[in-house]
Amino acid sequence: MSEHPAPARLDEFGRIARFFAPLAGPGALGLRDDIALIDGPAGTQYVLKTDAIVEGIHFFPTDPPRQIAQKLLRVNLSDLAAKGAEPVFYLLTTALTDACGEAWLAEFSAGLAEDQRRFGLVLLGGDSVRADGATTLSATVIGQVATGRAILRAGARPGDILYMAGTLGDAALGLKVLEGALTGLEATHRDHLVSRYRLPQPRLDVGRGLVGHASAAMDISDGLVADLGHLCAASSVAAIVETPRLPLSDAARAAFAADPGLLPTILTGGDDYEILFAAPEPARPALAKMPVTEIGRIEAGHGVTIVNGDGKPLELTRGGYTHF
Amino acid sequence: MSEHPAPARLDEFGRIARFFAPLAGPGALGLRDDIALIDGPAGTQYVLKTDAIVEGIHFFPTDPPRQIAQKLLRVNLSDLAAKGAEPVFYLLTTALTDACGEAWLAEFSAGLAEDQRRFGLVLLGGDSVRADGATTLSATVIGQVATGRAILRAGARPGDILYMAGTLGDAALGLKVLEGALTGLEATHRDHLVSRYRLPQPRLDVGRGLVGHASAAMDISDGLVADLGHLCAASSVAAIVETPRLPLSDAARAAFAADPGLLPTILTGGDDYEILFAAPEPARPALAKMPVTEIGRIEAGHGVTIVNGDGKPLELTRGGYTHF
Repeated sequence: MSEHPAPARLDEFGRIARFFAPLAGPGALGLRDDIALIDGPAGTQYVLKTDAIVEGIHFFPTDPPRQIAQKLLRVNLSDLAAKGAEPVFYLLTTALTDACGEAWLAEFSAGLAEDQRRFGLVLLGGDSVRADGATTLSATVIGQVATGRAILRAGARPGDILYMAGTLGDAALGLKVLEGALTGLEATHRDHLVSRYRLPQPRLDVGRGLVGHASAAMDISDGLVADLGHLCAASSVAAIVETPRLPLSDAARAAFAADPGLLPTILTGGDDYEILFAAPEPARPALAKMPVTEIGRIEAGHGVTIVNGDGKPLELTRGGYTHF
Repeated sequence: MSEHPAPARLDEFGRIARFFAPLAGPGALGLRDDIALIDGPAGTQYVLKTDAIVEGIHFFPTDPPRQIAQKLLRVNLSDLAAKGAEPVFYLLTTALTDACGEAWLAEFSAGLAEDQRRFGLVLLGGDSVRADGATTLSATVIGQVATGRAILRAGARPGDILYMAGTLGDAALGLKVLEGALTGLEATHRDHLVSRYRLPQPRLDVGRGLVGHASAAMDISDGLVADLGHLCAASSVAAIVETPRLPLSDAARAAFAADPGLLPTILTGGDDYEILFAAPEPARPALAKMPVTEIGRIEAGHGVTIVNGDGKPLELTRGGYTHF
């Protein structure tokens, strides 16, 4: 036990750096990539990812069990997608409260079955224990890539172009809708935003297409600003994002038009599960055919700068969602 | 820390069979082996195991964090040992209450570091979330075996001899000591039993030696009777255990001499983490050199029979520890 009074509490990343990074083996990529890589059968590597979701934090107790199961798989599959990996297997640990009876389990396992078929992976094993507080669900998802082809966080280089797949901010705005805000939006827009919050769509097709083109990639789960910060730190580069380039859904565009004060929500809100990536200039023609958008550039230096239409940097008071 | 299962509910094995076995892929071995097997680099397979431990069920809130960390790794390593696998990697998911601050984490990670060195594995990654009830810890441990050499549960054949490594019942008796029973035992015996309860010793050396000899193996975590039942079910055979052959530590022998009514505790108590295995007659000379004991035999049929010194079958009212 420490003799020294604890200073400010470490956040999740500080805890990982201090307590867990010293335990990491070579395949762990310094615990800075959200995935690990180990050798697989001839010419392949396995990509491993473990993510947990907790009742009351990552899902509502009243959410349909089918949707909870799919959220659990998909937050993990989203990381595999960003690496260009094909999902193959998963292991599952359930810590269930007594409220999760057999009807709950039947729906939960039906949700797993649906997503297994949809994304092409199978269950390998797991464990089930009792939870006396919140139901907590954890999955280890395993994908496969050709050796050396996984797209890591650490490969971005000055001069690369910065891209993202899909649209930004929908999930964070969807959460606001669920919390009773954005009442002025039309119903279809509100529904779109909520559905984006409720169930991530792992961009496996996009990830597959990025292999051989992208220099670095990750999924946006904790907000663009925070996650881009991690990509920059892992790659030892700086990034500049131009807000007029950010891809917004019609719903997010309508919300932003009605209240420009939502920009920080869009820039820092979590749960979009889109792919953020960098690619060198020569990849531009190939990427032009894909559902991705240029949002800025990579430069020498460190840190993330957000600039508006006239090139002025924005100040953000909140760097994204952290767990501690 | 006893369990009070509601009678009408499916137990853990019923839940697995109904809801999860239909989701399992080929490497999952029907979810009947506690481990999964997937292809690894040339000529090898990975053995994967996920086990979770929960505060108040599998460990006491007051247990030293170092010991909790080691228990978490070792309950998983014990399964790898029984398969004859070499530990290589692990992933870790922590759901921690606010009581687990930085001093707790420092001790916890020191325990992981010690056991990483002791057992030769490294951390690959993981996730950390907040727990609002009990701290819940889950690990996915990955070992490696030569292809086709893992010792499964399903290989026992009529005529095989039944063995176990180490001694039986110490952990369950140790829990009784912690609960205030067995006060007549001498202090060294009480300490021995408690230490056996507190921290499993995965029998990796024994498991290594069993490869090529044993026809089926598993670790004894839920009690001899229950686990032998699983081995028999997976192998479609019956087993007969002769109680006079059961290997008891000096401490367990002293406890049993003072109170023969402890026999059911010894036969059905959990947490020993010794290896139970079957091997054909020709393996006998090789196994005679190992720290293992013949405890009975495998026959055609199904189910587990426990016989005493004069060959009479015993009736047991409790089939071991179940989680639900």
